[in-house]
Amino acid sequence: MNPLTHQADPRLDLILERIVDIPPEMVWAAWTTEEHIKHWFTPAPWKTVECEIDLRPGGMFSTVMRSPEGQDFPNKGCFLEIVPNRKLVWTNALEPGYRPASKLLATPCDLFFFTAVLTLEPHEKGTKYTALMIHKDEEGRRTHEGMGFHDGWSKALEQLVAYMKSI
Amino acid sequence: MNPLTHQADPRLDLILERIVDIPPEMVWAAWTTEEHIKHWFTPAPWKTVECEIDLRPGGMFSTVMRSPEGQDFPNKGCFLEIVPNRKLVWTNALEPGYRPASKLLATPCDLFFFTAVLTLEPHEKGTKYTALMIHKDEEGRRTHEGMGFHDGWSKALEQLVAYMKSI
Repeated sequence: MNPLTHQADPRLDLILERIVDIPPEMVWAAWTTEEHIKHWFTPAPWKTVECEIDLRPGGMFSTVMRSPEGQDFPNKGCFLEIVPNRKLVWTNALEPGYRPASKLLATPCDLFFFTAVLTLEPHEKGTKYTALMIHKDEEGRRTHEGMGFHDGWSKALEQLVAYMKSI
Repeated sequence: MNPLTHQADPRLDLILERIVDIPPEMVWAAWTTEEHIKHWFTPAPWKTVECEIDLRPGGMFSTVMRSPEGQDFPNKGCFLEIVPNRKLVWTNALEPGYRPASKLLATPCDLFFFTAVLTLEPHEKGTKYTALMIHKDEEGRRTHEGMGFHDGWSKALEQLVAYMKSI
């Protein structure tokens, strides 16, 4: 079976593309290791205080983010596709075990459903990093954009690279 | 990565288990071939008049069912896991390409979200056939049950076996 190729729809989707100077294997480790996630996932001064990863299709991907004021925001999603060092897909429209998500928690990161497709390609400088956010409608895309998707994901990626170089 | 083992939750899920006297390969073919689907998928006098299958994770699984009165009811879902001859998982909570489903059409089969896990196991008489329907909440389970899940899926399975023996 051929893997699915994802075409972004500018009306509905958001995309972040960057070249980073660490290899795909290091980016992959940062994304798939619970302890690593806590060090870079949330743009400071926010923190990621908990993370659970069950790295298989249908497995859990959960995080708890803590605001600068100390409020916790849990997020729970489900992995869909795992191609080591190349592609990671998950969604918050399904809970672990593929159960349709029962409700949306009123947190900044969970006001709407989206599927995230992270693609890593080897590049002469390191890795071509592409994060595609697939929303159900234009409102979802606008909400995510208004929350600062581009700045937030850029900053988190900078944190990811700095952290992985430091360990 | 280990495949996910699905544990039914009686509060939220529905399950149909049957032994059928054809091998898993024939059941698999019935479920994954567009032309076959039209011959058995809908309990008579309902008909399945269209079917589109893109058999890969994220690929489309769509059908159009026609009522005895001639009204058409489209259904569109997304494949999640494909293990040839053993396991097929799809959901209507995501559209093809893993896009979160934007709305529910008011059709008998699309009033609620569910994920379906079809498991086929070799059995001395043919195949142990297990269909597990995973709902987001008790209301989803009750609605599906009230629509006649057990009778409908039993009858469709009888049609599947009879059709596959006839060709």
